[in-house]
Amino acid sequence: MDSAARHRIITLTTDFGMRDGFVGTMKGVILGINPEAEIVDITHEIAPQGVEQAAFIAAASARYFPPSAIHVVVVDPGVGSARRAIAMQKGETILVGPDNGVLSLLASGLKQGGEEVQAVHLTRPQFWLPRVSNTFHGRDVFAPCAAQLSLGAPLEALGEPIADWVRLAPVLATQREDGAWVGRVRHSDRFGNLVTNITEEMLRGAAPPQIVVQLAGKTIVGLKPTYAEGAEGELMAVIGSNWDLEIVQRNGNAAEALGAAPGAEVVVWVAQD
Amino acid sequence: MDSAARHRIITLTTDFGMRDGFVGTMKGVILGINPEAEIVDITHEIAPQGVEQAAFIAAASARYFPPSAIHVVVVDPGVGSARRAIAMQKGETILVGPDNGVLSLLASGLKQGGEEVQAVHLTRPQFWLPRVSNTFHGRDVFAPCAAQLSLGAPLEALGEPIADWVRLAPVLATQREDGAWVGRVRHSDRFGNLVTNITEEMLRGAAPPQIVVQLAGKTIVGLKPTYAEGAEGELMAVIGSNWDLEIVQRNGNAAEALGAAPGAEVVVWVAQD
Amino acid sequence: MDSAARHRIITLTTDFGMRDGFVGTMKGVILGINPEAEIVDITHEIAPQGVEQAAFIAAASARYFPPSAIHVVVVDPGVGSARRAIAMQKGETILVGPDNGVLSLLASGLKQGGEEVQAVHLTRPQFWLPRVSNTFHGRDVFAPCAAQLSLGAPLEALGEPIADWVRLAPVLATQREDGAWVGRVRHSDRFGNLVTNITEEMLRGAAPPQIVVQLAGKTIVGLKPTYAEGAEGELMAVIGSNWDLEIVQRNGNAAEALGAAPGAEVVVWVAQD
Repeated sequence: MDSAARHRIITLTTDFGMRDGFVGTMKGVILGINPEAEIVDITHEIAPQGVEQAAFIAAASARYFPPSAIHVVVVDPGVGSARRAIAMQKGETILVGPDNGVLSLLASGLKQGGEEVQAVHLTRPQFWLPRVSNTFHGRDVFAPCAAQLSLGAPLEALGEPIADWVRLAPVLATQREDGAWVGRVRHSDRFGNLVTNITEEMLRGAAPPQIVVQLAGKTIVGLKPTYAEGAEGELMAVIGSNWDLEIVQRNGNAAEALGAAPGAEVVVWVAQD
Repeated sequence: MDSAARHRIITLTTDFGMRDGFVGTMKGVILGINPEAEIVDITHEIAPQGVEQAAFIAAASARYFPPSAIHVVVVDPGVGSARRAIAMQKGETILVGPDNGVLSLLASGLKQGGEEVQAVHLTRPQFWLPRVSNTFHGRDVFAPCAAQLSLGAPLEALGEPIADWVRLAPVLATQREDGAWVGRVRHSDRFGNLVTNITEEMLRGAAPPQIVVQLAGKTIVGLKPTYAEGAEGELMAVIGSNWDLEIVQRNGNAAEALGAAPGAEVVVWVAQD
Repeated sequence: MDSAARHRIITLTTDFGMRDGFVGTMKGVILGINPEAEIVDITHEIAPQGVEQAAFIAAASARYFPPSAIHVVVVDPGVGSARRAIAMQKGETILVGPDNGVLSLLASGLKQGGEEVQAVHLTRPQFWLPRVSNTFHGRDVFAPCAAQLSLGAPLEALGEPIADWVRLAPVLATQREDGAWVGRVRHSDRFGNLVTNITEEMLRGAAPPQIVVQLAGKTIVGLKPTYAEGAEGELMAVIGSNWDLEIVQRNGNAAEALGAAPGAEVVVWVAQD
């Protein structure tokens, strides 16, 4: 295979942090197998065992990578137990990780919507490190399998086909009888911006958009076009970079100001023309 | 264009943190446009909206990169508002970011002092992602423009020339009538070392250097050659790696010991031979 | 030299953190000398001046890199003082850092056990940056020397051979008269898992292994195969990814639960068949 084919992106999303060398070790394993791999960190600051958070962030980020990317997600509280290690493929894109749902939003969110997802249970030790620990499959199983796949190993060579991989239940907003949307905070980012699952489409009504948002006992009226609108410290509703409703505070931290965290309920009324 | 030409360094300096996948997403966009780009993180731990801190750190670091590097700095509280997105070029070096001053120390600090700075307002959407959010121009505008520039797109193709980009006022020490220098703490680093804007040149006087420093109510006498001099816990003045006066604590944290932060006044007397 | 030869891994382990641009600056220096270098971060979150912690983490991670890797470790409280800057070579593997013991576990832990270690005192300024600060040899000495070595400069070109580099005293568990092993906590990782120096070999006795562990006043009975065994919040003993005894808490943080930190004594009784 030529160098260009091997020069494939492998992204890493984990809860390993950057303190302990775990991520560097995984990179050593990958580059030992495919020296041309282009490894990109999505994040390693997922809260320990934060399967839903990892699924959400990896899915949001992966959509901006070339379709040939391989996405490895290791948030794996069941490491070493009966939970399966899996790899999935949709079009050119490959996903590798534990079968605890952490890959499922990625699989359903990939833009290549028309193509079917293939999945295998990673059962072939010849694609793993020679000695496999019970506590660090990121290093011993997922990194070497991703590297082998980046070299062109076909998915089906690495294990048995499966169709029953674990799916996270989608966290979708619902509409009440009075027309209001009832959703949830999905993510609180570094800035304290609260990303909800109220989509831009749900807010399509009167133009300019006239909405009323209730969250953590506070009411926010109207949709601002940017973070830079509004008075210092004002709580605002905006459409964020995922094209979902975000609650933010002008030059502040909405999560702290509201005492709100992922899971908090958000209710939105949308005026219609 | 051959592979070597496309193998160009793109550095990233942001306040995005590493928790949320924002930086990984930018890298996906860049590598989707130029798979040969060599992306290097300067820092993503700038305090939210810390324009001056980002300008200072990016300028200090960029001087150690090859002149062909492209430096992207995204600390952008005005994202989506009327603030301009810009790119600048000085010699081979290219800078990309919001027009809020965050690039200005970089532009003035580049070693290629003799060459003039060209700048453009990034106004051509054909160089951006197809859909541009109001909240994440790092992904939608700055990353794709930097990637296009790394492929050789000429600066003037990306927008209209401008000359009135925002300059941060330089934070320079001044000399009092009695000869003492009055400066400021510019940066407090991970170790609590306090980097000031008192330059090595200002300290040239008696040899060996005899100085008296006042900071946060404490007096420090003499200039130590290294961090390793002095007694455990001693506050010391040294010439730091930016060739400016630093106040440090032997195996300790001067910022905590002094309760001093960026902006704090520092006064230095220099004895002359 | 051809591109493949220059495409050599250089790992970085430091206590510089990611806030201040120090690591990015080192990468700029390396890539300015060898644009084909493949730089991999092991960790930059070593506690300030944490020489033993850096030695431990770098040694654990480096074993998973190809033998051609160059490992740079900069935890250097004596920077600018009389402490020597050194480079070492064992087989193909090269180590670069201060001579304070931070490389010694790496040197002794490399798998190429049969080969002898060569070491030099880095004394040749032509391999450093033109201007060397007293406070940032990571940038001015270690990064350029590593980059030159990655280009194929022979070790002995960079300085005088030495044999008396500083060795950290190995922290080995000992066996009491009653047969119990007495060891130490070596590392507390992001998850609060407590890695000890009790090796898997020491635990070989009855099968299935019957052990009793005492740590921080608590007693833990039995060895669990994985983190996922045991009840929520249970303290457990497992064999970790370094093949040493780890004390962990199911979906919790053992270091916090026990109030235990590196250095804490651990005593283990092993039943024999």
